[in-house]
Amino acid sequence: METSSEKKKIPHMTITRLAQYLNCLSLLPREHYKEISSKELAAKIGLKPTVIRQDFHHFGGFGQAGYRYKVPNLIDGLERILGLDQKQNVIIVGVGHLGQALANYRNFEKLGLRLVGLFDINPRLIGITIRDVRVRDIDEIPGVVERDNVAIGIITTPAEAAQSTANLLAHAGVKGIWNFSPVNVAGPAGVIIQNEHLSVGMMTLSYMLKQSHPPEAQG
Amino acid sequence: METSSEKKKIPHMTITRLAQYLNCLSLLPREHYKEISSKELAAKIGLKPTVIRQDFHHFGGFGQAGYRYKVPNLIDGLERILGLDQKQNVIIVGVGHLGQALANYRNFEKLGLRLVGLFDINPRLIGITIRDVRVRDIDEIPGVVERDNVAIGIITTPAEAAQSTANLLAHAGVKGIWNFSPVNVAGPAGVIIQNEHLSVGMMTLSYMLKQSHPPEAQG
Repeated sequence: METSSEKKKIPHMTITRLAQYLNCLSLLPREHYKEISSKELAAKIGLKPTVIRQDFHHFGGFGQAGYRYKVPNLIDGLERILGLDQKQNVIIVGVGHLGQALANYRNFEKLGLRLVGLFDINPRLIGITIRDVRVRDIDEIPGVVERDNVAIGIITTPAEAAQSTANLLAHAGVKGIWNFSPVNVAGPAGVIIQNEHLSVGMMTLSYMLKQSHPPEAQG
Repeated sequence: METSSEKKKIPHMTITRLAQYLNCLSLLPREHYKEISSKELAAKIGLKPTVIRQDFHHFGGFGQAGYRYKVPNLIDGLERILGLDQKQNVIIVGVGHLGQALANYRNFEKLGLRLVGLFDINPRLIGITIRDVRVRDIDEIPGVVERDNVAIGIITTPAEAAQSTANLLAHAGVKGIWNFSPVNVAGPAGVIIQNEHLSVGMMTLSYMLKQSHPPEAQG
């Protein structure tokens, strides 16, 4: 976990797996898991222990076979690698069901995120308050982004509004966009886009179901 | 895409990537993309073309470098590999914001899913109708799963209720569980569990932000 090794370009799928490791470790009951081996962690996530050890190798200090990692150290290290030790201000654009679900998402704080704004175009939503945050008109996005130094904009608008919202957020100065609308959005250079597709999880489940319950011969 | 090669055990991360390819291809404007190379697809997803070609190799017919795949054939092939050509009945347990967001999710039909039931324990929700599906008490889950041959149960309950809901669904006879609660659930042998963690996407974004915008020296 040397700073120099962190600077190396890490493959995207490795980062996704590191996030899965951290997520899994954070959910372990602390009293039962003071230490964990790559084999135990692998079994919980459904990966090979060698994959986990290879991933840990990207970060120097980790990676010995048979070694039992101290869980709190592993969590701290992963949080630092993933940048979760830095607090970030976020706003949510689109206060429909998904936007409200995310606004109420208790794990935000654990991820180092502070919700500082909710925005919509619907006059019936503007003015209501969710978890002490008032819903405002999207016209107010640039002012809030500048004033509160907002790093991340979350898009939970309908598909039709997603790209224009991404443009608005990028123009306002956010550094990252987490897009939950069902279409991909593109951003100007310098803005990081994470397109989140709920359907990917369902497709994975569908595949596993097909493997374990092959359809009866038909016709 | 021979049946024999589909029977081989495919690594989990490969399946996730296949789902990402399918998702990306389905979002392409049809008029501009009749054909696509692994290089073009790789650029859109942020992977190396060799990774895509290796993944396609799992399924026989695919995989030549430089080849331009016909997009509709690729979509059909991926849908078949992932089992999305088989229609499945699903129910959602937990009709809070996230449950309602999923109930209103337009892409369900594209994934071959038919929503046949919504369940909650809250008397204020029981009886309301979302997209022509009435919210019922969770006591009615076993009857609906049996009558409608429900394959997949989606959990959008609070953390505290997630494991008991998983047990109830498994006992009722679902084959797969898609869990959106913020804790992992375990299932009896034979039931496939997909634990969905929204925080993984945010952690990935956080890492990319850290790489592109390193913090100023502090102190």
